[in-house]
Amino acid sequence: MKALLVYSGGLDSTVLLHKYREHIVTAVSFVYGAKHNSREIDKAKQNCSELGIRHIIIDISNIGACLKSSLLEKADVPSGKYDNKNMKSTVVPFRNGIMLSIAAGIAESNGFDTVMIANHTGDHFIYPDCRPEFIEKMNESINLGTDGSVKLFAPFTNISKAEIVKIGAEIDVDFKNTWTCYNGRDVHCGVCGSCNERKESFQLTKIKDPTEYEQ
Amino acid sequence: MKALLVYSGGLDSTVLLHKYREHIVTAVSFVYGAKHNSREIDKAKQNCSELGIRHIIIDISNIGACLKSSLLEKADVPSGKYDNKNMKSTVVPFRNGIMLSIAAGIAESNGFDTVMIANHTGDHFIYPDCRPEFIEKMNESINLGTDGSVKLFAPFTNISKAEIVKIGAEIDVDFKNTWTCYNGRDVHCGVCGSCNERKESFQLTKIKDPTEYEQ
Repeated sequence: MKALLVYSGGLDSTVLLHKYREHIVTAVSFVYGAKHNSREIDKAKQNCSELGIRHIIIDISNIGACLKSSLLEKADVPSGKYDNKNMKSTVVPFRNGIMLSIAAGIAESNGFDTVMIANHTGDHFIYPDCRPEFIEKMNESINLGTDGSVKLFAPFTNISKAEIVKIGAEIDVDFKNTWTCYNGRDVHCGVCGSCNERKESFQLTKIKDPTEYEQ
Repeated sequence: MKALLVYSGGLDSTVLLHKYREHIVTAVSFVYGAKHNSREIDKAKQNCSELGIRHIIIDISNIGACLKSSLLEKADVPSGKYDNKNMKSTVVPFRNGIMLSIAAGIAESNGFDTVMIANHTGDHFIYPDCRPEFIEKMNESINLGTDGSVKLFAPFTNISKAEIVKIGAEIDVDFKNTWTCYNGRDVHCGVCGSCNERKESFQLTKIKDPTEYEQ
């Protein structure tokens, strides 16, 4: 497998980067105008540099400017858990579709056979472009649209963030070098949907959470 | 139907723009670094302006810079017909996948229910992301990834460029206001794959071709 990883610098994709490091030739991060973009990308850079994996950053913030989401606009990111109704505002319309499509074009152009992404079960409730049925159809679309040369590999699709934390701990991922919080401040806020899920995942697994939280 | 058209400014998408003008709320053109990009976009601007349809232009040339194709690089565009082996170099990997995905995100963000594109049978042989099976899967991907809010509509998928010329003539499209040639010079070269197909389509239909060709 010669893979291109869609890599945010978050916990999930960092565990994926480490677990499949021998197969990942390049990781690609997208600047799309999210409040927490630069925090995430700093972590992505650091992890790729430590593993000696080529890292490219593509600025698509002009595309982000055409999309509506509380992650992008001046509106506040809602606090609470992912199953709250107000969390819907954090959807960035078709974000994974956009990033996977760009990655598919780059993969085909460079002779890679695989695009990887770290979507997991915790994302399914709110984010339609993280669900198994989307991933399956997108895999078929990418495969057909690249004349059979590229496939999609999303090995965390049916496992939870807690299980990803376990996998990360087993292979000694330094979780401090990952960013989860939707608010891009100096430390994790501790109250946004994404922080809540991160906290709970460590609590469930009883693995020590090295993250500094505001609350 | 409230549609967003992926609009190059070529003959096919210009006929689509005119035919579905009552349903198309916005047309989006992409600058991706093709030699003929600015010629096409001039035509796109002109047609949208004449029809009073909102036109947005998104520069994705930094994505184009990561893709390999003779349409993008300094290499010459091959002359000949689409079924020649050398035409494969004109594939821009997953171009339609990328443009449709961005359009899907914009459509969902703006409450449009449809993304339109003007792929047709003449594209099928070389361009995998123009074939019916790709369009079908991409429609399913977009629909799932936008939680059922956006669908893909590609009404020329199973008709030829000659048939599109006929449709255009019936609704009085001014074909002079469309750009087809892969070489972005002052007038159409007349010998690239795209020009050859344009010429043949007019010849087949016996409709007068108003295009000025170098050869």
